[in-house]
Amino acid sequence: MNISSRLMRKGEMTRAAILETALDLACREGLEGLTIGLLAEKMSMSKSGVFAHFGSREDLQIAVLRLYHQQFEQEIFYPSMKLARGLPRLRSLFERWVKRVTVEIASGCIYISGATEYDDRQGAIRDELAAMVGTWQNALKRATEQAVKQGHLHAELDPDQFVYEMYGLVLALHHDARFLKKSGSVNRVELGFERMIKTYAPQCQEYEEHH
Amino acid sequence: MNISSRLMRKGEMTRAAILETALDLACREGLEGLTIGLLAEKMSMSKSGVFAHFGSREDLQIAVLRLYHQQFEQEIFYPSMKLARGLPRLRSLFERWVKRVTVEIASGCIYISGATEYDDRQGAIRDELAAMVGTWQNALKRATEQAVKQGHLHAELDPDQFVYEMYGLVLALHHDARFLKKSGSVNRVELGFERMIKTYAPQCQEYEEHH
Repeated sequence: MNISSRLMRKGEMTRAAILETALDLACREGLEGLTIGLLAEKMSMSKSGVFAHFGSREDLQIAVLRLYHQQFEQEIFYPSMKLARGLPRLRSLFERWVKRVTVEIASGCIYISGATEYDDRQGAIRDELAAMVGTWQNALKRATEQAVKQGHLHAELDPDQFVYEMYGLVLALHHDARFLKKSGSVNRVELGFERMIKTYAPQCQEYEEHH
Repeated sequence: MNISSRLMRKGEMTRAAILETALDLACREGLEGLTIGLLAEKMSMSKSGVFAHFGSREDLQIAVLRLYHQQFEQEIFYPSMKLARGLPRLRSLFERWVKRVTVEIASGCIYISGATEYDDRQGAIRDELAAMVGTWQNALKRATEQAVKQGHLHAELDPDQFVYEMYGLVLALHHDARFLKKSGSVNRVELGFERMIKTYAPQCQEYEEHH
């Protein structure tokens, strides 16, 4: 390895280390609580040292969002894609998502906290975050549509409605466990999802009658 | 009316006017975005003029929260209490709540935005907010229990589970309509609630079989 590529390698590693610390900070303080000053302090670097790796605070925030998205995909999306289409895959997406939000109760899910942090703001970060959440909702919708096609869910089911209700269950988990410090929320999210699957089952009479 | 009581009256009116403006600001900027400086500017008053009515920023924030709570009760809780116990009352609580959150899409519901704003903070404001949200969830729980007693909902229903799912539907409305700017969310929240009522109905087989 020659000197310049070794230097580049070191630069990339430093950048990755800064980014990991920044993600950690953003999970605790919110993306808006992420400042170059705080990050430099945590990394025992100078502010200009941090700036050398990220052109601006906004670039840093977006890089953090992308890292979060990447980890989210690695933990939830890709392993679920290995399962059979239909309920097995849909269940896996939901369960892995719930598991991740449960782990994040102490720190906070950037997708969920970010939604209220940026719901009244304009700009690149909001757009990036909204696009990522949209991507996630679309992945859930596709898995739901496949479950309908496989005959695992009711043929008349509206996938957008299904995703809306799934999302609500997870938002309630984040709300009750993180803000209200209520116990038992993980059990509730699972019961709620089981009820959804049952009442949207292909043979559910209640659903047919009232649809 | 003598001079001192007229002065007191004027003082109360000014305080009420400041408070209304503060609530408006808090709905837009979040409770943490509410500063004495910003408020003084909006009211064309001096900062010390605002401080004369509220001892501290925290006192002001708590007064704003109490006003919000009062308005919430006036709009949602009290009118619903006039309806018959059971589903009529429960439905009214839910529908009025949804209506209020819908109106607040442009500004933001303090109970919902506040939950992520204060979920990692300690102190008097968090405690006050959590107590208010707890009071609201308890009111929903009581109405659910009454609906069970009246035979309008399944005898084996867990009221905490029911409230959890209702809450999730409304959180999803706030999330999708306010953050993602998705249309049709109001329709989804209503469909979701109707499905809950149906699948938790006293005679629902799906619920009985799997309970």
